[in-house]
Amino acid sequence: MPTSRLEAFSDGVIAIAITLLVLEIKIPSREGASLAHALLDQWPAYLSYAVSFLTVGIIWVNHHSMFSHLGRADPVVHFLNLGLLMTIAFVPFPTAVVAEFIERSSDERAAAVLYGALFTLMAVFFNVLWQYMIRKPGLLRADADPRQIEAISRSYRPGIPLYGLATTVAFLSPIASVALFGAIALFYMLSPLRR
Amino acid sequence: MPTSRLEAFSDGVIAIAITLLVLEIKIPSREGASLAHALLDQWPAYLSYAVSFLTVGIIWVNHHSMFSHLGRADPVVHFLNLGLLMTIAFVPFPTAVVAEFIERSSDERAAAVLYGALFTLMAVFFNVLWQYMIRKPGLLRADADPRQIEAISRSYRPGIPLYGLATTVAFLSPIASVALFGAIALFYMLSPLRR
Amino acid sequence: MPTSRLEAFSDGVIAIAITLLVLEIKIPSREGASLAHALLDQWPAYLSYAVSFLTVGIIWVNHHSMFSHLGRADPVVHFLNLGLLMTIAFVPFPTAVVAEFIERSSDERAAAVLYGALFTLMAVFFNVLWQYMIRKPGLLRADADPRQIEAISRSYRPGIPLYGLATTVAFLSPIASVALFGAIALFYMLSPLRR
Amino acid sequence: MPTSRLEAFSDGVIAIAITLLVLEIKIPSREGASLAHALLDQWPAYLSYAVSFLTVGIIWVNHHSMFSHLGRADPVVHFLNLGLLMTIAFVPFPTAVVAEFIERSSDERAAAVLYGALFTLMAVFFNVLWQYMIRKPGLLRADADPRQIEAISRSYRPGIPLYGLATTVAFLSPIASVALFGAIALFYMLSPLRR
Repeated sequence: MPTSRLEAFSDGVIAIAITLLVLEIKIPSREGASLAHALLDQWPAYLSYAVSFLTVGIIWVNHHSMFSHLGRADPVVHFLNLGLLMTIAFVPFPTAVVAEFIERSSDERAAAVLYGALFTLMAVFFNVLWQYMIRKPGLLRADADPRQIEAISRSYRPGIPLYGLATTVAFLSPIASVALFGAIALFYMLSPLRR
Repeated sequence: MPTSRLEAFSDGVIAIAITLLVLEIKIPSREGASLAHALLDQWPAYLSYAVSFLTVGIIWVNHHSMFSHLGRADPVVHFLNLGLLMTIAFVPFPTAVVAEFIERSSDERAAAVLYGALFTLMAVFFNVLWQYMIRKPGLLRADADPRQIEAISRSYRPGIPLYGLATTVAFLSPIASVALFGAIALFYMLSPLRR
Repeated sequence: MPTSRLEAFSDGVIAIAITLLVLEIKIPSREGASLAHALLDQWPAYLSYAVSFLTVGIIWVNHHSMFSHLGRADPVVHFLNLGLLMTIAFVPFPTAVVAEFIERSSDERAAAVLYGALFTLMAVFFNVLWQYMIRKPGLLRADADPRQIEAISRSYRPGIPLYGLATTVAFLSPIASVALFGAIALFYMLSPLRR
Repeated sequence: MPTSRLEAFSDGVIAIAITLLVLEIKIPSREGASLAHALLDQWPAYLSYAVSFLTVGIIWVNHHSMFSHLGRADPVVHFLNLGLLMTIAFVPFPTAVVAEFIERSSDERAAAVLYGALFTLMAVFFNVLWQYMIRKPGLLRADADPRQIEAISRSYRPGIPLYGLATTVAFLSPIASVALFGAIALFYMLSPLRR
C-alpha cells in the first residue's frame, strides 16, 4: 500500500477525533442557574477541550513529519499506526471525564490520571512506531537525510518522560497536570521558532 | 510540510464541524405535545443550524482563497491555523446553546453573546493569520499577485467590526443578532456576484 | 477555486452525514424488556437508517456525475451547492424522527412528511444547481458531451415529482412513504444495469 | 467514475465510523461509585471499542488491497460497496450494545449475537463484492496479476466461516465470542509477517 493512502487515512481519523471533542461539552439546561453562570462554571470543559485540541494538533504535525520519511509500510507499521490511531481516536473520552470531574469532585485525581495515562500511551505508540521505522532496514525513503532522522529522534526523546511526569503531577494537583499537558503542547508547537 | 496537506487537514476539520451541527438538534419525545407542534416549536434550532452552516461555509471558501496564495507554512502559520480550527470546531456548542435558549428563556441574551463572541474570535484568528502571512517575508507564493492580495485584505477588513457589531446587537435583541450573522454570511456569499 | 476542491469538500460532508446516521439509533436500556425484543422492536430505526443511507449514497453518485462536467464554479454554484449540502447534512435529523415515531405513535404522519419534505427539498436544490450549471454559459467543461448532458438532465427530471409523490403518500400511509423512498433509491442505483 | 474517488469516499466513511466508536463509551456520572471504580467497571466498553477498532482497521486494509486491482467500477460494484459501507458505518451500534450488556446482564447473549451477525454480514458483502469483481469481465485492471488475485481470494476464503463460527460461540460464551473477533483481527493483521 502506498504510504500516501496510509497517511490520508491517519489524517482523516485525526481530523475527526479533534472535531468530535466539542460533542463532549454539555449544553446547560434551561432549568437551573443562569446561563452565564452555568457557562462559566464549566470552564474545565473548555480547558480540557483546548488542551486536547492542541495536543492532537501537535500529534498530527509530528505524524506527518514522521511519515514524510517513510518509503514503504510493512504490516508492523500498519499495526503500530493503527494502535496509535486507536489512542488518538480515544482522546474525546478522557477529555470528557476531565471536563466532568476536574475541580468538581473528589474524584478529580482519577480523571487526571486517566487523561495523562492515555497521552502517555499515545507517546509510547508514537515512539515505538518511530523506532521501528528507523531500525527496520528498507522502510525509510532512500533519500532520507540521516541528520534529519537523528533530529527527529532527538525531538521525540523527551516525549514519554515529559508526559509521564505530567501524569505523575496529577497525584499532587489534577488541574496542574492538565495545565502542564497544555504547556507541553504549546512548547512543542512554538519551539521550532527558536531555530 | 507542503501547504496542500495543511489545507486538506483544515478542510477535513471544517467539513466535519459543519456536518456535526445537526447532532445538536433535539429529537422531540413521544410524550408531550404533538410532533408537528414540537417540530415547529424548535424553529430556533433550525435557524441557528442554517446560520452556523452558512457562516462556516463562508469561512471554508475564504480559508481556501487565503491558502491558495501561501507558498510555505512556518510554525506560526501552523499555530494560528490550529487556533482558527479550534474556534471553527467549537461552533456546534454555541449553536446548540442558541437553539436551546433563544426565544425560549430569559437567558437568551447570554446565549446570543456567546454565539457572537465565538464568531468574532474566529474572525480575529482569521485576520491575524492573514496579516501574518502577508507580512512575514517568504511565506506567500512567489507568483502571488499584489493586487489580488490587496483585494483579499480589503475584503477581510470589515469582518471583525461587522461581527463585533452583530455581537453587540445581542444586548438589544438576541434574535436580531443571530439573524444578522445569517445576513452577513449571505452577503459575503453573494457579494462576488456584483463584480 | 478548482472544482476538485469543491468536490472533495462535498464528498467529505456527504461521507460524514451518511456515517453519522448510526448515532441516531438508540441503545436499548438494561432495564426494560429483553434485549432481543427491544432490538426487534426498533425495526423502524433500521429501516430509516437503510433508506437514508441508500438515498444519500445515490445523491453522492449523482453529485459526482454532475460535477464531472463542471469546468468552473462561480459564486452561485458555491451557494447552491452549500444549500444542497445543508439539506444532506440535515438528513440524520428526520431519519431519527422517523425512527422514533413511525409505527409507534399517532404522530407518525408528521414524521414521514418531514422526512419526505427534506428529501424533496434536496431534490429541488439538486435540480436547480444542475439547471444553473447547464444554462449559465462558461461553467461546463469545454469538452462536455451535449448528449451526455441531455441524458443527465433526462435522468434527473423525474426526481422532484417522484419525491413529491412519495411525500404525499405519507398522508395515506407513513410507512409506505418511507418504503417508497427506499424503493426509489434502489431503482436509481440499479437502473444503469438495464443499459 | 474513477475508482480513486470511490475509494476516497469509502476511506472517508471507514475513517469516520472507526472514530465515532468512542462516542458510545459512557462518561461516568459524578453521583455514584468512585470514578476509578466506575471506569474499571465498564471494561467491556473498552474491549468492544478495541475489537471493533481493529476489525474495522483490518477491513480498511483489505478494502484497499481489493480496490487496488479494480480498473473500472460498474453500478453493481457501487451498489455492493454501498452495502458494505452500510454495514461498516453500522458498527458503532452493536459495539455500544455489547458495551452495555456483556457481562452485565442476562441479555449478553443477544448482544454478542448481534455483534457477530453484523461482522458476518460485513464479511458476506466483502466476499460477494470481491467475487463479483473477479468474475465480471472487464472490471479488474488489465495488468492485474492472476497469482495475486488468487492469493487474495484464498486469504478471504476463511472470513465468512471464521466470523460465523465466532458468532456461534456467542451462544456458549458471549465474552469469548467478542474476544474471538479480537483474536481474528489480530491474526489477520499480523499474519503477513509470517511471509
